[in-house]
Amino acid sequence: MTRTIFVINGPNLNMLGTQQPEIYGLETLADIEQLCLKVGNELGFNIAFHQTNHEGDIVDLVQLAREAACAIVINPAAYTHTCVAIRDALTACDFPIIEVHISNIHRREPFRHHSYVSGVAKGVIAGLGVEGYAAAIRALATFVRT
Amino acid sequence: MTRTIFVINGPNLNMLGTQQPEIYGLETLADIEQLCLKVGNELGFNIAFHQTNHEGDIVDLVQLAREAACAIVINPAAYTHTCVAIRDALTACDFPIIEVHISNIHRREPFRHHSYVSGVAKGVIAGLGVEGYAAAIRALATFVRT
Amino acid sequence: MTRTIFVINGPNLNMLGTQQPEIYGLETLADIEQLCLKVGNELGFNIAFHQTNHEGDIVDLVQLAREAACAIVINPAAYTHTCVAIRDALTACDFPIIEVHISNIHRREPFRHHSYVSGVAKGVIAGLGVEGYAAAIRALATFVRT
Amino acid sequence: MTRTIFVINGPNLNMLGTQQPEIYGLETLADIEQLCLKVGNELGFNIAFHQTNHEGDIVDLVQLAREAACAIVINPAAYTHTCVAIRDALTACDFPIIEVHISNIHRREPFRHHSYVSGVAKGVIAGLGVEGYAAAIRALATFVRT
Amino acid sequence: MTRTIFVINGPNLNMLGTQQPEIYGLETLADIEQLCLKVGNELGFNIAFHQTNHEGDIVDLVQLAREAACAIVINPAAYTHTCVAIRDALTACDFPIIEVHISNIHRREPFRHHSYVSGVAKGVIAGLGVEGYAAAIRALATFVRT
Amino acid sequence: MTRTIFVINGPNLNMLGTQQPEIYGLETLADIEQLCLKVGNELGFNIAFHQTNHEGDIVDLVQLAREAACAIVINPAAYTHTCVAIRDALTACDFPIIEVHISNIHRREPFRHHSYVSGVAKGVIAGLGVEGYAAAIRALATFVRT
Amino acid sequence: MTRTIFVINGPNLNMLGTQQPEIYGLETLADIEQLCLKVGNELGFNIAFHQTNHEGDIVDLVQLAREAACAIVINPAAYTHTCVAIRDALTACDFPIIEVHISNIHRREPFRHHSYVSGVAKGVIAGLGVEGYAAAIRALATFVRT
Amino acid sequence: MTRTIFVINGPNLNMLGTQQPEIYGLETLADIEQLCLKVGNELGFNIAFHQTNHEGDIVDLVQLAREAACAIVINPAAYTHTCVAIRDALTACDFPIIEVHISNIHRREPFRHHSYVSGVAKGVIAGLGVEGYAAAIRALATFVRT
Amino acid sequence: MTRTIFVINGPNLNMLGTQQPEIYGLETLADIEQLCLKVGNELGFNIAFHQTNHEGDIVDLVQLAREAACAIVINPAAYTHTCVAIRDALTACDFPIIEVHISNIHRREPFRHHSYVSGVAKGVIAGLGVEGYAAAIRALATFVRT
Amino acid sequence: MTRTIFVINGPNLNMLGTQQPEIYGLETLADIEQLCLKVGNELGFNIAFHQTNHEGDIVDLVQLAREAACAIVINPAAYTHTCVAIRDALTACDFPIIEVHISNIHRREPFRHHSYVSGVAKGVIAGLGVEGYAAAIRALATFVRT
Amino acid sequence: MTRTIFVINGPNLNMLGTQQPEIYGLETLADIEQLCLKVGNELGFNIAFHQTNHEGDIVDLVQLAREAACAIVINPAAYTHTCVAIRDALTACDFPIIEVHISNIHRREPFRHHSYVSGVAKGVIAGLGVEGYAAAIRALATFVRT
Amino acid sequence: MTRTIFVINGPNLNMLGTQQPEIYGLETLADIEQLCLKVGNELGFNIAFHQTNHEGDIVDLVQLAREAACAIVINPAAYTHTCVAIRDALTACDFPIIEVHISNIHRREPFRHHSYVSGVAKGVIAGLGVEGYAAAIRALATFVRT
Repeated sequence: MTRTIFVINGPNLNMLGTQQPEIYGLETLADIEQLCLKVGNELGFNIAFHQTNHEGDIVDLVQLAREAACAIVINPAAYTHTCVAIRDALTACDFPIIEVHISNIHRREPFRHHSYVSGVAKGVIAGLGVEGYAAAIRALATFVRT
Repeated sequence: MTRTIFVINGPNLNMLGTQQPEIYGLETLADIEQLCLKVGNELGFNIAFHQTNHEGDIVDLVQLAREAACAIVINPAAYTHTCVAIRDALTACDFPIIEVHISNIHRREPFRHHSYVSGVAKGVIAGLGVEGYAAAIRALATFVRT
Repeated sequence: MTRTIFVINGPNLNMLGTQQPEIYGLETLADIEQLCLKVGNELGFNIAFHQTNHEGDIVDLVQLAREAACAIVINPAAYTHTCVAIRDALTACDFPIIEVHISNIHRREPFRHHSYVSGVAKGVIAGLGVEGYAAAIRALATFVRT
Repeated sequence: MTRTIFVINGPNLNMLGTQQPEIYGLETLADIEQLCLKVGNELGFNIAFHQTNHEGDIVDLVQLAREAACAIVINPAAYTHTCVAIRDALTACDFPIIEVHISNIHRREPFRHHSYVSGVAKGVIAGLGVEGYAAAIRALATFVRT
Repeated sequence: MTRTIFVINGPNLNMLGTQQPEIYGLETLADIEQLCLKVGNELGFNIAFHQTNHEGDIVDLVQLAREAACAIVINPAAYTHTCVAIRDALTACDFPIIEVHISNIHRREPFRHHSYVSGVAKGVIAGLGVEGYAAAIRALATFVRT
Repeated sequence: MTRTIFVINGPNLNMLGTQQPEIYGLETLADIEQLCLKVGNELGFNIAFHQTNHEGDIVDLVQLAREAACAIVINPAAYTHTCVAIRDALTACDFPIIEVHISNIHRREPFRHHSYVSGVAKGVIAGLGVEGYAAAIRALATFVRT
Repeated sequence: MTRTIFVINGPNLNMLGTQQPEIYGLETLADIEQLCLKVGNELGFNIAFHQTNHEGDIVDLVQLAREAACAIVINPAAYTHTCVAIRDALTACDFPIIEVHISNIHRREPFRHHSYVSGVAKGVIAGLGVEGYAAAIRALATFVRT
Repeated sequence: MTRTIFVINGPNLNMLGTQQPEIYGLETLADIEQLCLKVGNELGFNIAFHQTNHEGDIVDLVQLAREAACAIVINPAAYTHTCVAIRDALTACDFPIIEVHISNIHRREPFRHHSYVSGVAKGVIAGLGVEGYAAAIRALATFVRT
Repeated sequence: MTRTIFVINGPNLNMLGTQQPEIYGLETLADIEQLCLKVGNELGFNIAFHQTNHEGDIVDLVQLAREAACAIVINPAAYTHTCVAIRDALTACDFPIIEVHISNIHRREPFRHHSYVSGVAKGVIAGLGVEGYAAAIRALATFVRT
Repeated sequence: MTRTIFVINGPNLNMLGTQQPEIYGLETLADIEQLCLKVGNELGFNIAFHQTNHEGDIVDLVQLAREAACAIVINPAAYTHTCVAIRDALTACDFPIIEVHISNIHRREPFRHHSYVSGVAKGVIAGLGVEGYAAAIRALATFVRT
Repeated sequence: MTRTIFVINGPNLNMLGTQQPEIYGLETLADIEQLCLKVGNELGFNIAFHQTNHEGDIVDLVQLAREAACAIVINPAAYTHTCVAIRDALTACDFPIIEVHISNIHRREPFRHHSYVSGVAKGVIAGLGVEGYAAAIRALATFVRT
Repeated sequence: MTRTIFVINGPNLNMLGTQQPEIYGLETLADIEQLCLKVGNELGFNIAFHQTNHEGDIVDLVQLAREAACAIVINPAAYTHTCVAIRDALTACDFPIIEVHISNIHRREPFRHHSYVSGVAKGVIAGLGVEGYAAAIRALATFVRT
C-alpha cells in the first residue's frame, strides 16, 4: 500500500512569510515543505506537497489523493469557511484527514470560526504555527493502516 | 433555432458511483450521460454533457450556453449552496433552466437545504436519482420554444 | 400487490386555473387528474385522485393509503409549510412518496421555502407546472416494488 | 352585483364572553352578529356571519365567498399566526378583505405579533373590541365597487 | 361535580403500534385506553377517551370538556408544535391540564422541542411511553377539586 | 372633562397627496383634518390636529395632551418603527390611544412590521386609508370616559 | 443487581418551601425525601437522596451512581439550563434516567425552556409539583431491568 | 515607483451590456476599459484591466498586483458576497484598494448586502454605474503615494 | 430647471476635524463646503450646503429640496443607521440622491453596516474621505436631467 | 480648568414623579437637580442641569460640554436604545462620562437591555433611583483630572 | 435587625491587581475590602467580605445571607454571564441586592453584555472601578429597612 | 525558570476508557498521564497532571499554574462550552496554553462547536485521540521561553 501523504495548501499560502507576519509568522511555504519532508522521512512517509489558489484544483487534488495517497493533511485557508465542494471531495476518502491552520482561527473574525472541513476530518490543529504540519504528520503515523 | 440542451454537472459528480452509494446510488456519470442522450434523442434534442470541479468553468459554460443551447439542466452539486456567480450567469439566460439533485438535499445537512440556483431556475427536481435528469429533459420538451 | 398511486392535493388546489394564473397556470385540477390517469394508464398504475382543504383529511388519506396504495404523490400546497401532522403520517408509509409543487416555491415568499414534507419524501419536484405530476408518476414507476 | 359581506370568525370565538373577559370583553359572538347586521343594514349590505373551529372550513368559506360576496371581514383568531392555507384562499379574492382582532394582538405573546393574513388583507384593525367589526364594515362601504 | 377526565389524542395516534415502534413502542391506542380506564377506575374517575386527526375537532373537544370534564389529559401529537388554536381552547379551561408525549420529544427533531400547549398546561410528561398517561391521571387525582 | 382629541401626525405626512400615491392615496393632510373635524363634530369632540417632522415635538405634544385631551389618535409614520421616546410618552397617558396607519404596513418592507407604539396603544388601524382616522375617532367615542 | 435509585437534587432545592411558594409550593425537600422513600418502599427500591449546590458534586454523584444505582431521578434545577458536564456524566449511564422539575419550566423565563439533560434522559416530568418525584419512581419500576 | 492601477473585474462582467440592462446599464466591459484608460491617462496612471470568471484567478491577480501595481480597483461581482480568499489576498496589499459595484447592491437581494471585500478596502462605491470606475481612479489619485 | 444640489450633513459633522481624526481625517466641514462649491462651480451647479444635528431638520431639508434642488448629496452620519423618517423623505424625491460617508462604515462597528438610506439612494460612496463629496457631485453631473 | 459637570436628561424625564411611579419613583426632576447641586457643591463641582425631549438638542448639549464641562452625567432615557448620534457626540469627549438610569433597565422590556451609550461611557449605573445621580457625581470626583 | 452587608466576589477576583490592570486597575481585593469596611463603618454597617472561585460556594453564601445579612453587594465576575443558580439563590432574598462590576462590561466581548443577575438585582453599577463597591454600599444605606 | 507543564483535565475525563469508547477510545486517564510523562521526560519538562469535575477547582489550578508552571495543556471537557471563569483565569497567564480535545468536537452536537477557551489559547488540537496530549507538549517545547 502507498505510504504517500498529500499535503494540500489553499489560497494565499504561497505568500506565507511575506504578509501579516504577526498572524502567520515568518516561515515561508518552502520552509513548511522542508519540515514536512523531514518529519515524513523520519516516519517513512512520502510527502506530496501542493499549493493552489483555486478551489477546483483542491477538489481535483483530493480526488487524485484517493488513488495515490494514504492520508491527507489539508490547510484549506480561506476555503475552510466557504467551500462545500472540498468537504464533499474529502468525504469520499476512506483514509484519515487532518485539517491544519497556522493561526488560531478562533481568535480571528467570527466568519473564520466555522469550518466546512472539520465535520469530515479526523482531527483539527490550529494555532501551532508551522509546527501544526509536523504534528499532523506525526499523528497520522499512529492512524494510517499499514 | 438550436435544439441543444446543456447538461452541466458540478464538483465531485465525476466520482459518482464510487463514493457514498447509500446517498448517490451506483450509477456513474457515464450512465447519466447515456440516459440523457437516450431521452434527448427520443425528444429531438442534442445533449451537450459537461462536468467540472471548477466554479469558474461552470460560469463559462453557462455563458457559452447562452449562444449554443435552448435550455440548461444543471446539477451544481456543492456549488448549489455557496455560489452566487453561477446564479448570476443563469439569470442572464432567457431560456428554461432546470436544477437537478440526485439525492434529496432536504434530508441532508441543513446547509444543503438552501440553493442559490433555485431562485433563478424554472424548476427543481431532487431525490429522484439519475431519473431526475430524464425527468428534467422531458419537462424541457414541454417548455422550450421551437 | 396493489398498483394504486394516491395523488393527494391540498388546500385551494380545487380552485386551480381560476386564481393567480401567473403563478399556477391555466390548467384546472380536472386537467391534472386526466394527465395523471393517462400517465398512470401507460405505466400500469391505478390513480386515486383526491383534493381537500382540510389538514386532518390529508392525514386520514395518507393513513388509508398505507393499506390501499403502493405510492403517494402529494402536493400539500399551503400545508407544506405548516403541517407536522402530514409529515408524521407520511413517515409511517413504507413505500415511496414524491412531493410535487406546481410553482417553484423557492422563487416565492421566504415562508414557502421550507417544507415539512421534503424531509420524509423520497423526491421533490417544484416548478414544472402540471407536468410535475406526470414526472412524479413516471419516477415512481422506477421505484415501486412490484 | 352582490351586496353581501362574509364575516368569518375563527376558532374559539364561539366561546366569546365566557373566557378571558379581561382580554376579549363580555360580549358574545351573538352580540357581534347583531352589531354587524345593524351596521350592514344601515349601509345596505347583507351580512353572512360564520364561525368555525376548523381551518379547512375557513378555506371553504373563503372560496365560497368568491362567488357569493363582495367583501370579507375575517377574524382568523389563532389561525392568524399559523395558517398559510387561509392566506392562499384570501389571495384569490379580488375584493377587499379586512382583518379584525378584538384584542390588541401586539400587546400579547410574541407569537401573536405576526399574521399570515395581514400581508394579503387591505386593512387590519386590532384592539377596538367588538367595535372593530363595525369599523371594518363601515370601511368596506367606502371601498366596495358597486 | 363531574369526575370525568377527557383524554384527547391527536393525529396519527390511531396508528400507534403499527409505525415507528422504535420511537413509540408496540402498544396500541386501545391498550392506552384500557390503561386509562383501569387507572381512572382505581381513582374514581370516569375516562372519556378520544382520538382525532383534525385540529378543529380537538378544539371542539376541549370546548366540550369545559362543560363535561374536571380535567384534561392531552397528547396533541404533531399539533403540539404548530397549533395555537388548541392552546387558546385550553387557556379557557379552569381545571388542570396535563400534556403527555409517549416519546421524549427533546431527543427528536428540533421543531419538536417547542410546544404551544406547555405554556398553558399545569404539567408536562414526555418519554415515559404509555405509562405517561397513567402518571398523568394519578397526578390529576392530587390536583382536581372535589 | 375635556372633550378634545389630539390627532398627531408624524414625519412626511405633511407631503401627503404629493408622493407615492399608489401607497398613500391622493388625499392631503388638509383633507384628513377636515374629515377628523367632521367626524369629531358629529360625536361631540374637539379635534386638535398636529403634524411635525420632529420626534421631540411629538413627545412634547403627547405630554401636552396629558393635560389638554381625553384621547389621542396618532399616526407616528416613520417614527413608528424607531422611536421609544414616543412610546414612553404615550405610556404615561391614562386615556385611550389609537394608532393609525394610512397604508397597510404589513404589506411593506419588513422593518415596517414592528411598531413601538402598538404595545402601548389601545387599538391599531392600518390600511384603511384616510378612513382610518374616522374609524379611530368613532371608536374613541365608545371608549372615552365622559 | 442493586435496587437503589439515586434521587439527585440541584442548587437551591435545599431551600424549598421557604422561597417563591407560588412557583415551588410549600413542601420542603425533607417532604420530598419522605415521599420518595415511601414510593420506593412500595415498589421495592432503596432511595439514595442527595442535594447539593455544586455542579461538580452532581457530576461526582452521577459517576458514583454508575456503580451503586439502577436508575437516577434528577432535578438539576438551575443547572438544567447551563450544565453540559452533568449531561456528559449522565450519558455514560446505561440505566434509565428521569428528569423532574417541580414547576412547569415552560411557563417561566425563556432561558428555562431548554434543558441540556432532556436530550440524554429517558423521560421528563415538569409541573406536577412534588408528585413528579413519585411519578418518576413509579415509571422507573416499569423500565428498570431486574 | 510603479504608476499602474490594476482594475480587476469578477464573474459575468464580461457579459455586461447584454444582460439585465435595467440593473447594469448598456455599457460593455470594453466601454469601461476605455473609460478607465482615459481617466488613468489624465492622471498619469497606467491601467492594467482584467476580467475573469474564476475566483482563483482573482487571487492570482491580486498577488501579482502586489509586485506590479500601486493600487487596485476591484469589482468582485458575485464573489463579493462569498469569497474570503479574495479578501485574504487583498489584506496583504499595502496600497489603497477601492471596491466598485455598478449597481447599488443595497437595493437588491439581501445576500448582496454583505461584502467580504469592504472590510479590507479603503473605500466603496456602489450604484454610480460605469462612472464608479472613473470615480475610483480619481480618488486613488489623491491617496497613492508617489 | 434648477441647477442646485443640496448637500446635507447629519449630526456631529460640524465637529469634523476636531474629533477622531484617525477615522474622519483633519479636514473641517468648512473645507468640505469649499470643495463642494469648487466642484459644483466647475460643473455648473449651485451648492446649498447644510448641517444639522436634528433628524427632523433633515426631513425638513429634504422636503425643501423637492422644490429647490435637482439632486441631493447626503451624509446622514449617525442617522444612517437609525432613521426611517429621512428614508421616507428621500423616497419622495424624483431626482438622484447620493449617500456619502467619509469613513468606510463597513470597517467599523456592526451597527454601522446597515443603512436605511442606501435602499432609496441611487449610489453610495464610503471611505473616500472628503473626496467622496466631490465624487458624488461629479457623478450627479452625469445623472441629472437638464 | 473648568469644574462644571453637565447633567443631561433625555425625553420624558421632565414628567418624572407624575407617571409610572412604580418604576420611576415619586421624586421630580427638580428634586434630582437639587440633589445634584448639593452633591456637586460638597465636591466642588458646578452643575449644569439640562432636560430635553429632542435627540438633536442632546447632541448639541454634548458638543457644548466639550468646551464648557469637565465631565458628563447622562440619562438618555428612551434615546439610550435608539440613538447613535448621541453616542457619536459622546465619543468625541475626552473626559469621563457616566450613564445613569433611574430604573433597572435590565428588568424591563428586552429592547431596553441594549444601550448605545454604554459602549462609550466610562461607567453605568442603573436601578439606584435618583441616588444614581449622586453616585455618578461622587464617582466623577475620583476620575476628573484637576 | 441585622446591619450586615454581604459583599460576595466571584472567580478570579482574588487575583485582582496582578492581571489585566488596563481593565481592572491596580487595586487588590484587600484594598476593596478595606474600602468596603471604611464606607460600611461610616454608615453603620458590618461588612462580611467573601471571595470564591466556586459557583456552588456563591450559592451557599447567598443562602447564608438570607439569615445573616440585610443586603448583598455581589460582583459575580465570570459567573455573571453563565450562572442561573446564583440568580435563583438571589431571587429568594427579600432584601436589596446590588450587582457591581469593576470594569464596564458593555465595552468588552459581547458575551459579557448579558447578566443573569441584573434581572433580579435592584441596581447595577459597572465601570466605576473599585469605587463601585463604595457606591453600592452608600446606595444600600438609602434602601435598607431599619 | 520552572520547566513544569500543568496538564488539566475537566469533568468526566476520570471515567475515560469506560464510557462511549466509540467517541473517546479505550485509553484511560492513567494511560494519558503516562504518555504525558514520557513525552515530557523526552523534552525536559516536568508534568503536573490533574483532573477534577469541579469548575472552581480548574480556576484554582490555573491560578496556581501562574506561579508554578511554564505552560498549560488543558482539556476543559464539558466546561469548554459553558465556562467563562476558566477563560478569565487563563487570560491572566503570560505563558502558552494549548487546548486539547480527544474527540473532534466539530463532528458532535452543535453546542460543542463553540469553545470559550479557544479565544485565549495559543493553539487548539481536536480529534487526535490521546495523541493530542503528546502533540500539545511537543508544540510547547517550541514555544516555551527557557
